[in-house]
Amino acid sequence: MSDQTITSAANPRLKALVALRRRRTRDETGRTLLEGYDELALALSAGVRPHELFVCPELMADPRAQDDVVRAARAAHAQVVRLSRPAFEKVAYREGADGFLAVVPAVGATPRELLLPAAPLVLIAESVEKPGNLGAMLRTADAAGVDAVVAADPVTDWGNPNVVRSSKGTVFSVPVATATTAETLAWARDRGIQVVAATPAATALHTDVDLTGPIAIAVGTEKEGLSREVLDVADVQVRIPMGGKANSLNVATSAAIVLYEAVRQRGPAAR
Amino acid sequence: MSDQTITSAANPRLKALVALRRRRTRDETGRTLLEGYDELALALSAGVRPHELFVCPELMADPRAQDDVVRAARAAHAQVVRLSRPAFEKVAYREGADGFLAVVPAVGATPRELLLPAAPLVLIAESVEKPGNLGAMLRTADAAGVDAVVAADPVTDWGNPNVVRSSKGTVFSVPVATATTAETLAWARDRGIQVVAATPAATALHTDVDLTGPIAIAVGTEKEGLSREVLDVADVQVRIPMGGKANSLNVATSAAIVLYEAVRQRGPAAR
Repeated sequence: MSDQTITSAANPRLKALVALRRRRTRDETGRTLLEGYDELALALSAGVRPHELFVCPELMADPRAQDDVVRAARAAHAQVVRLSRPAFEKVAYREGADGFLAVVPAVGATPRELLLPAAPLVLIAESVEKPGNLGAMLRTADAAGVDAVVAADPVTDWGNPNVVRSSKGTVFSVPVATATTAETLAWARDRGIQVVAATPAATALHTDVDLTGPIAIAVGTEKEGLSREVLDVADVQVRIPMGGKANSLNVATSAAIVLYEAVRQRGPAAR
Repeated sequence: MSDQTITSAANPRLKALVALRRRRTRDETGRTLLEGYDELALALSAGVRPHELFVCPELMADPRAQDDVVRAARAAHAQVVRLSRPAFEKVAYREGADGFLAVVPAVGATPRELLLPAAPLVLIAESVEKPGNLGAMLRTADAAGVDAVVAADPVTDWGNPNVVRSSKGTVFSVPVATATTAETLAWARDRGIQVVAATPAATALHTDVDLTGPIAIAVGTEKEGLSREVLDVADVQVRIPMGGKANSLNVATSAAIVLYEAVRQRGPAAR
């Protein structure tokens, strides 16, 4: 069933997999890791073509579950390698490994390479620090039908294994891009995309503003929010109404609230 | 400034603090731990009266920052204990300890003990497993002005240190309660609170339903969603429109989207 078998955890090929946890290796090779059956199935259905697929039947809840993923990987000309449990556990990076790990092409175009509809709904995440927050935003973007997510002045790369994991694989189904904040703003201006900056300092509520046109909703870092650079050129600033004592929402939660207000206004008819 | 000083990490009093990380100890003592300056300041402003406050000036970014918290703790008749760095690091449970740790009364009434306005907005979280998701929901509930959050058939307690931490202290500012699912549903019925069940199986969108009256928005476990028990008696079922490949939103994100639709319909005038 598999082209090759690795039984020793000392096999040098495993080192190359572990090395992909480092951003530098990802940048140099243009590849990243994708672990987990559900995530892999989602990426394959989104058209991702893995370079290599590593499977460990001993770790699978149902070893027959691998058949469709292995078939799809072979159809994409991926090499399929069977690993012993010690070998797989050396390369697995998350708890509760389920026996599936692939090396896939890294994602992330520049904004100008994105193919967008006439009136796109875009999310700009500026310098968001926590991979878990980026992953959560991708899940929401996938569900909300966002046309692209742009990481502006990114702190982490889209191939970060914790982004991939927390996105549940949606980093491969939602078009993503990376650029400096200046490039991102110039692209939005040139494309006629209105930048809607989410900031607690705004006067208008997010529900008071027309979100039906070509727009990019921009959210900033966990601590400081959006940079002056974005706030100064944004076409409109909006805030989410907040009562309570803490007066703060998680950045991924804020993005979800504003994105789904846009979905409400635009009409979910297409979904 | 402090009533007492502990310099040895072997001091038996520290063991009692570490023991509060266990749910059984929290249940037996009716106490829990609260760590971090911001969280503590929020809880104090919400009226929480700590039993004990442990401070470690060496770990504080600005040791003068402790003055207001120490003053408020003393006003609540808390005992204030100064710890050496090794002693504090033994009891601190989160990374990047900032020198503040308090023992506070555990929270969580029964639903019938809650004091609610005439047309309350309530969140019911049924059997949610991850403390981080419960904490995220509390932050959103605080911001959205939710009147109470009820844990139905809970998997974790409100005093779980990871709930407290991820809630940023809002577990002490938002009224919280705990009960079985059956008790929670009976309470809602008796109080005339309509149960709005969020489930992907619903026909109506969350934006199509009147959320302005006395309502409780119910969300379920990360994997399975709400139980049959809730779905069968809910007054209305709603779904969030989802496109995309993954067809799943995080439970805390789902709660935020529906809660903020309720805020939009009810009008944020009071905020």
